[in-house]
Amino acid sequence: MSLDQPSAKPHDRLVAALASEMEAVNVLIRDRMASEHAPRIPEVTAHLVEAGGKRLRPMLTLAAARMCGYEGPYHIHLAATVEFIHTATLLHDDVVDESRQRRGRPTANLLWDNKSSVLVGDYLFARAFQLMVETGSVRVLDILANASATIAEGEVLQLSAAQDLRTDESIYLKVVRGKTAALFSAATEVGGVIAGRPEDEIRALFDYGDALGIAFQIVDDLLDYQGDSNATGKNVGDDFRERKLTLPVIKAVAAADADARAFWSRTIEKGKQEDGDLDTALSLLNRHGALEATREDALGWSEKAKTALAHLPESDLRQMLIDLADYVVARVS
Amino acid sequence: MSLDQPSAKPHDRLVAALASEMEAVNVLIRDRMASEHAPRIPEVTAHLVEAGGKRLRPMLTLAAARMCGYEGPYHIHLAATVEFIHTATLLHDDVVDESRQRRGRPTANLLWDNKSSVLVGDYLFARAFQLMVETGSVRVLDILANASATIAEGEVLQLSAAQDLRTDESIYLKVVRGKTAALFSAATEVGGVIAGRPEDEIRALFDYGDALGIAFQIVDDLLDYQGDSNATGKNVGDDFRERKLTLPVIKAVAAADADARAFWSRTIEKGKQEDGDLDTALSLLNRHGALEATREDALGWSEKAKTALAHLPESDLRQMLIDLADYVVARVS
Repeated sequence: MSLDQPSAKPHDRLVAALASEMEAVNVLIRDRMASEHAPRIPEVTAHLVEAGGKRLRPMLTLAAARMCGYEGPYHIHLAATVEFIHTATLLHDDVVDESRQRRGRPTANLLWDNKSSVLVGDYLFARAFQLMVETGSVRVLDILANASATIAEGEVLQLSAAQDLRTDESIYLKVVRGKTAALFSAATEVGGVIAGRPEDEIRALFDYGDALGIAFQIVDDLLDYQGDSNATGKNVGDDFRERKLTLPVIKAVAAADADARAFWSRTIEKGKQEDGDLDTALSLLNRHGALEATREDALGWSEKAKTALAHLPESDLRQMLIDLADYVVARVS
Repeated sequence: MSLDQPSAKPHDRLVAALASEMEAVNVLIRDRMASEHAPRIPEVTAHLVEAGGKRLRPMLTLAAARMCGYEGPYHIHLAATVEFIHTATLLHDDVVDESRQRRGRPTANLLWDNKSSVLVGDYLFARAFQLMVETGSVRVLDILANASATIAEGEVLQLSAAQDLRTDESIYLKVVRGKTAALFSAATEVGGVIAGRPEDEIRALFDYGDALGIAFQIVDDLLDYQGDSNATGKNVGDDFRERKLTLPVIKAVAAADADARAFWSRTIEKGKQEDGDLDTALSLLNRHGALEATREDALGWSEKAKTALAHLPESDLRQMLIDLADYVVARVS
């Protein structure tokens, strides 16, 4: 993800603007991921938490709360909450996807075992839950409970939708909200809630996070078919080889004639891939304008994110979040 | 478990006394385990939820709330919450233990796959979280968040402690609280909290659930070495063959001479078991009085459970809970 790279300018400006608070978040994370009784827990968690993720989600919470004038202590708790939920889902995802690498390091399920990943994920989710209870805000708990349900439902939906050519853009959007956008939108929304802002501003913060998350994921799916593998760290065609029905392919299937449909059915649904199929896929994606249409969608969601922030008072942090929405799609603009 | 059998008298009396409320819990469970988007979710959940568990945990919540004079609607939500958390942990446990049977039926991980069990478990946990937020009680959320953390920590602890002869009774107790007692005690405690009872009664309800859960688990561990497999549905020695370091073995190891210690190290730690080892194990467990001491512990926890209830006003429901504590240990008395 480009947002995790040092060259990410808006991200770096946010890091600088929120440095002391992010340090407080890191201290809280290290404190709460400990376990007196089960040393396996901090081992597994440290492996992932310390592995150099750029803490994008907790930064969104900190930025939203500070932008809304929040002066209390609980944005730190909520930022740590959001990072714990994210880390818990990564641990479970790696079991589900049978992944072997994450953030350039072997996954926990490979280093330890699936059992540890499942149970330590559960532990982190419970710890997240404890952290958010400390805020004493039932509304915050409601938002994060709903986000958790959306995340889990999206993940299950992806299991059944992933290789089914009937998957359409509305199902894709539900999966993407589950995978990415639900936690982004909860991360920004709770910042406005604990700051006690008016409903229209809270809604705007939700909309920003939602649209940013969707843009982020669409760009990721698009770069899988047209990215520079040196810049993205991914190989072109990984999603195709893993038979993932992402937005470019969904658009191509919708526009496909009988021959093209048979191709997608064979390669994605049945998984019978041969040499040269990736080239054929790329050619079909271009012929039907699927990549271009996907790019337009990403830009549209980035615009929605920026428009949402117009409901909030001007500030340096607001500008950084607007720039972040531009940055997310910069590589495909 | 005997508590899940029709012959369980106190259980049946509780079922009869709480029938209409339990029906409301079942309606709520069926409603909330649905998913508009992901049909896999109700498939997996129904398989487990409908499989004939006797709803012991939700019944504890209903009984505690009603015994405390609660007249509102939220004990139904909390009872469903507790059952969802229990079901979520069963789904994850079956993945961790690579189980093939649960409640006499094939496990979800066998019928579908580990992925579905992990993700549907996450979904049920999130749904539980939504249900408890609806009560609007931060204290209830705090109790259930802490119970969730204890459960997950206990499960992780069990991974490392299971085959380590250094595991002592205090570690065993932590594992048992995680596996069983933490949800029992939370189930009863929240009943008193939503009823607004004084602190000493709430504490008594916690103590009852905690002691009942510990007694329940110790009996289970004991019956594995001396039960009648027709009555228990388990084969004598299953835990031994699976190299589980349960309380009888912990007690035997503590009393072991060098030869006996070598035996436990070979069979449990190293897992090198031969024909006749189960007989040797049983003989060692008897020689050191380990089974008798385990039985005494179970009876002691049952007494603690009953003593705790003395803090609460007399009522029919209180008597049924007292009888339930007797019943849990009846098969080993």
